[in-house]
Amino acid sequence: MTQQFHDTTLSGQALDQIFRAARTYNGWLDKPVSEAQIHAIYELMKMGPTSANMQPARLVWVTSDDAKEKLAQLCSDANKDKVRAAPVTVIIGYDIDFHEELPWLFPHTDAKSWFEGNEAGRKEGAARNSALQGAYLIIAARALGLDCGPMSGVDLDGVTKEFFADQPRHRADWICSIGYGDPTTVHDRSPRPDFDKFNRIG
Amino acid sequence: MTQQFHDTTLSGQALDQIFRAARTYNGWLDKPVSEAQIHAIYELMKMGPTSANMQPARLVWVTSDDAKEKLAQLCSDANKDKVRAAPVTVIIGYDIDFHEELPWLFPHTDAKSWFEGNEAGRKEGAARNSALQGAYLIIAARALGLDCGPMSGVDLDGVTKEFFADQPRHRADWICSIGYGDPTTVHDRSPRPDFDKFNRIG
Repeated sequence: MTQQFHDTTLSGQALDQIFRAARTYNGWLDKPVSEAQIHAIYELMKMGPTSANMQPARLVWVTSDDAKEKLAQLCSDANKDKVRAAPVTVIIGYDIDFHEELPWLFPHTDAKSWFEGNEAGRKEGAARNSALQGAYLIIAARALGLDCGPMSGVDLDGVTKEFFADQPRHRADWICSIGYGDPTTVHDRSPRPDFDKFNRIG
Repeated sequence: MTQQFHDTTLSGQALDQIFRAARTYNGWLDKPVSEAQIHAIYELMKMGPTSANMQPARLVWVTSDDAKEKLAQLCSDANKDKVRAAPVTVIIGYDIDFHEELPWLFPHTDAKSWFEGNEAGRKEGAARNSALQGAYLIIAARALGLDCGPMSGVDLDGVTKEFFADQPRHRADWICSIGYGDPTTVHDRSPRPDFDKFNRIG
């Protein structure tokens, strides 16, 4: 029985928490994020839809001092200390050969064959859908009372080499710190476009 | 004053609505989605973070019978009737020259210069960040009591030509129907991976 929520709107506080009042943090309170919290984020984010349920994201949750330092060295100067201070920074990568997993992820049809022999198409699909998954990760973390600091100022080839060395078909795509944000490290809110600027109804 | 929600978890019903019980729909009830609802979705989704607030998504909300038919003709056979029946199908595109907007979207620094002369990098950033925005769109629609049917089975070059003809730097990337889902059109839930399958803690 499919549960439906037609015309049910989340509470104003919930909408504030996941969208309207949520902010990107550049520094973190000295308060840990547990492995149970990491699992809880993933349990939510994995429910979000991806094309043919491909679930191409491959995630490394950087929590140890050693791994944080390795990742910080590969970040732009502005991001190094953020990564050192964050309880967790997730490396969002993807598997170019995600289609090998489709026989069990999308079992009712032969979706693997759709992607065989088309590496460029796989890379495009993996990048698009792992980005969707990264957005679900951000919303899931916020929905559980955590804050995020997504970053793209990082040497992706270096991160791929360092953190996916044993997985030659995986690529790092961006990173996102998660923790309890330090409210003094939030910048002024950047402007948001009015509807008519980037939207058309046709 | 930055509002924080530390350790506040959304209600179980809210988590069900946006992640756990939400489903992808393949057919739609005969119930319209208003322009006010479309605007409300955008007002939420635009608050989600993008790199340097680039907001590269360019959205066409297909609602008229004429536009639906044009879009349906460019869809795979499996998706044609879905698009015809949905009250709205959003074309998620992106602007390869999003950096031209950065002087007002990210006003505190010269972010435009970071992207000048690097079209490949802009295309990668636009695709990644517009995908994030598409995921925010899905969650926002669900948070407002609507259902989604994201699809990538569509002729993207054809959609770009048909719907972004006046915007030669825009590209269509995927589409997503929005409406009141018909519960009889939901497939069995595809399996979701255990944490250890695609995650590592390091």
